[in-house]
Amino acid sequence: MKEGDPGGMLAGLQCPLPAGERPASERPAVLLAHGGGGRMTQALIQDLFLEAFRNPALEALHDGATLSLEGGRIAFSTDSFVVRPLFFPGGDIGSLAVHGTVNDLAMCGARPIALSAGFILEEGLPLEDLRRVVRSMRDAAARAGVPIVTGDTKVVDRGKGDGIFITTTGLGRVPPGIEIDPRRARPSDAVILSGPIADHGIAVLSVREGLRFETELKSDSAPLHTLVEGILAAGGEGVHVLRDPTRGGVASALNEIAAACGYGIRIREAAIPVREEVRGACEILGLDPLYVANEGKCLAIVAREKAEAVLAAVRSDPLGREAAFIGEVVEEHRGKVVLRSRIGGNRVVEMISGEQLPRIC
Amino acid sequence: MKEGDPGGMLAGLQCPLPAGERPASERPAVLLAHGGGGRMTQALIQDLFLEAFRNPALEALHDGATLSLEGGRIAFSTDSFVVRPLFFPGGDIGSLAVHGTVNDLAMCGARPIALSAGFILEEGLPLEDLRRVVRSMRDAAARAGVPIVTGDTKVVDRGKGDGIFITTTGLGRVPPGIEIDPRRARPSDAVILSGPIADHGIAVLSVREGLRFETELKSDSAPLHTLVEGILAAGGEGVHVLRDPTRGGVASALNEIAAACGYGIRIREAAIPVREEVRGACEILGLDPLYVANEGKCLAIVAREKAEAVLAAVRSDPLGREAAFIGEVVEEHRGKVVLRSRIGGNRVVEMISGEQLPRIC
Repeated sequence: MKEGDPGGMLAGLQCPLPAGERPASERPAVLLAHGGGGRMTQALIQDLFLEAFRNPALEALHDGATLSLEGGRIAFSTDSFVVRPLFFPGGDIGSLAVHGTVNDLAMCGARPIALSAGFILEEGLPLEDLRRVVRSMRDAAARAGVPIVTGDTKVVDRGKGDGIFITTTGLGRVPPGIEIDPRRARPSDAVILSGPIADHGIAVLSVREGLRFETELKSDSAPLHTLVEGILAAGGEGVHVLRDPTRGGVASALNEIAAACGYGIRIREAAIPVREEVRGACEILGLDPLYVANEGKCLAIVAREKAEAVLAAVRSDPLGREAAFIGEVVEEHRGKVVLRSRIGGNRVVEMISGEQLPRIC
Repeated sequence: MKEGDPGGMLAGLQCPLPAGERPASERPAVLLAHGGGGRMTQALIQDLFLEAFRNPALEALHDGATLSLEGGRIAFSTDSFVVRPLFFPGGDIGSLAVHGTVNDLAMCGARPIALSAGFILEEGLPLEDLRRVVRSMRDAAARAGVPIVTGDTKVVDRGKGDGIFITTTGLGRVPPGIEIDPRRARPSDAVILSGPIADHGIAVLSVREGLRFETELKSDSAPLHTLVEGILAAGGEGVHVLRDPTRGGVASALNEIAAACGYGIRIREAAIPVREEVRGACEILGLDPLYVANEGKCLAIVAREKAEAVLAAVRSDPLGREAAFIGEVVEEHRGKVVLRSRIGGNRVVEMISGEQLPRIC
């Protein structure tokens, strides 16, 4: 490479990694050939993906998996994960990709049946990083009791991706009688939040920004299907809406629900759990925890007569011990979310307008 | 930016696009905020995705779609698309992403029921390019008779993606009695190929390399589920294996089948249809058409007694007019593919070892 760059010509070139970040030659890395559909692709599938995800549907190594399903209602959900960095306190892109899709199914009231995974890898990614992510997916899927039955791997040239992007898609079964839909929220419904907010966003941001706190802040990334089963067992048809407040946080999730159902949602600031160290980090970073992403929390909007039973069920789950009533659906403030602050004033909580934290999931 | 770069410091910076490729300020582009989960994400979903894909499941705007299914066997398949360039003769990444997943379902013997789509967009992508791709997906899905019922959009910072990556996942229904599995190929089965090979790979490569030919070479990108229905109607349980020879081409697809079933596959070079201009382009580019990607072709491995009926069915479909018997499954050459050349010699056709054409799909 030239020493000087007077014409700015280097700007148009593909960026090589700085030398210190280049994979050492003895550190095996993803090559374009791993995405070619030939022997190297097969080797990657056999050594890495099959080794981790082994199950009969995947072992058929066909273009897709074939599953036998009972008739009924099926939930179908997809999410792409581009979180940066790939590894963060409390999780990594692999477990996040499993939890995120398991949770999207759970928010439809569904129990997961099967997942697919599509990988877009950047040339030069250390194979050990890929292996670590794949094993983390395996463990997360095993804990959630859901097999990864089919997948795909593509490789893009260096500088055209960012290590690993994963798209997971899930199939789940919705039990009879369960009708979860943001349009079902109605006045007097209680709003339950399963625990303290903003852990995921702050954990990812703290490692990205090199911030240190006295206590390590950890992502709350976790699968919520068991917690949701408890909610449905306790609340039955009285469970109107479920939502996991991921990017955009609790504020955006509640705004979406208010817009969908056409009623208002009133929440009480003092009732919303936020860990002390997370609140401190938000203050330092100038972030409102209401807008920060969660990856293991659930909002449940439940008929008043079922609300106590549902809250008790959530609190009996290890992931919901700190659950709380945070508000209710109201006739007024149609389509809006209104927060009663600690000092007693009311303010409209808008949907986040842009990007508070890029690439948080 | 500094005029000189004596320490090579610029190498580690994110590459800005060269000025000529920067979107003009009056040309609206994807921003990081479009991926933030807030108002701009909602606007993108409403104006672009919902406008194109409108259907009741998608309009619920929930974390996933809920579908009512009859019981039975379901095919489930996912593919990520990273083709470069986004637009090429005969198609674009949008139609390709629909056809690719419809075809993977078809290769399981399934009729498509629903698709999901996960988008990973690069900051700076012109919104008009995204709109063009989304409309192309809409048209391809409508032609294939399959709704896009759920999706997700993420945005990565400039220089960490490449315009648009799309991951489509499909659900399909496998009719009773149909058992398509590469392990079912057996000696004396006929190998049928639905038409001339290598069109897709050569079309993409020609535009990427700026090659011009007398006739425009076009991708064969097309949905194969109707052709497969014809195959299954004609061949029933005698249809043992279906495979669309995408990246890695016919050679790699047949090698995978030979490895899975444990028998040999013998093919005749003279029987394999290749368009004259594609053959010429392959010669110029030093490519073997057997290894070049197809996106609208199907290999069918069929019991001998059903072979004539299946070939007739394929030829009666507009996408299969040039179908041919190209070989058979044999006891010898176990796990290998052997080609009888035009001049009479035999050679083993290996699985492609690396990457012949990066980012072809």
